[in-house]
Amino acid sequence: MKLYDVADSGNCYKIRLMSALLGLDCQCQPISLEKAEHKTPEFLAMNPRGQVPVLVDDAITLWDSHAILIYLAGKKDNKTDTKSWWSNDITDQADITQWLSFSAREMWAGCAVARATVKFKRPFDLNAAQKIAYAALDILERHLSDHEWLALDRPTIADIAVYPYAGLVWEGGISLAPYPAMRRWFNRIEALPGYVPMSGLPAPE
Amino acid sequence: MKLYDVADSGNCYKIRLMSALLGLDCQCQPISLEKAEHKTPEFLAMNPRGQVPVLVDDAITLWDSHAILIYLAGKKDNKTDTKSWWSNDITDQADITQWLSFSAREMWAGCAVARATVKFKRPFDLNAAQKIAYAALDILERHLSDHEWLALDRPTIADIAVYPYAGLVWEGGISLAPYPAMRRWFNRIEALPGYVPMSGLPAPE
Repeated sequence: MKLYDVADSGNCYKIRLMSALLGLDCQCQPISLEKAEHKTPEFLAMNPRGQVPVLVDDAITLWDSHAILIYLAGKKDNKTDTKSWWSNDITDQADITQWLSFSAREMWAGCAVARATVKFKRPFDLNAAQKIAYAALDILERHLSDHEWLALDRPTIADIAVYPYAGLVWEGGISLAPYPAMRRWFNRIEALPGYVPMSGLPAPE
Repeated sequence: MKLYDVADSGNCYKIRLMSALLGLDCQCQPISLEKAEHKTPEFLAMNPRGQVPVLVDDAITLWDSHAILIYLAGKKDNKTDTKSWWSNDITDQADITQWLSFSAREMWAGCAVARATVKFKRPFDLNAAQKIAYAALDILERHLSDHEWLALDRPTIADIAVYPYAGLVWEGGISLAPYPAMRRWFNRIEALPGYVPMSGLPAPE
């Protein structure tokens, strides 16, 4: 199983973290964004988006971090419905998918774009991104005030999809201080057996 | 089954279209954005995002269009794995989910935001949105040049998730003329038994 990877990418980190938590062996192939290795014809043939992560496992190539999370969760224990990171039950799948969409839309356009603007000097609208980020963080804080995990009362890929850009948001100029319930959720994730960090995570106290 | 609905919303239309294609009976409850009915405490208790659509079916409340698509597909025929709009197979689920993420991120931040800016005079950055939209439409055009459907060689919820804001992008100031493969895909969707239109769809030739 090979992951085309950028160390600073929160989306790639989702896959490294999930693999570590599942005990899956994943070979990381670093991609240089400076050399535009994600825009070569060979790379675009794997991923029309021209982005990392990409996962290749035998004949299967997947080009979206949330799709890869589902695939990895199923690879480990797709015969069991309990204590799984995904689920065989359609209503459970819908519950988890709410947070995958939330991650792809609000967490991306808000938290990830704010970080890209501040940390990597990308030419985005920081005020617009931070406004989306604050709204997203408020939703998380309220939900985590009376839930230990985002979905199904257990750790699922919903948590793995949302955690990185929530935890990294301080690199986008947003303080984590007003979000105590979210920070307690960070601590629960960081205490999971097999947890691995990335640069910027765990977030400083 | 009750859908909290806004007629002009592409995300709500995904649910109306899927319900019609599946032959499911769905009662639409119109929500007035002008009266901020999506920001009342009662509505926010159903959906922390404060957005439409929301689906309520007996004890189940779902607040994301893609989560609702999975739920509806499973409600109709979650015992069968073939000719289904979703799948019981985890690799198939990952394939479809790639396009759900693509819809939540690129189609939203590009096509939907461009439309909201032009058609509904929302204060977003039209140039930035159109740039994301053009990149997304290029990905769709290339993929649909040698695929009839987005995933699994059959109509799935991937198509239903992406079609509305692709078809409506002309309302965001982007011509559909350069995308013949995409327009043929529109025609295939619009020929599916049970297809229902919305204002702006099918797109004018």
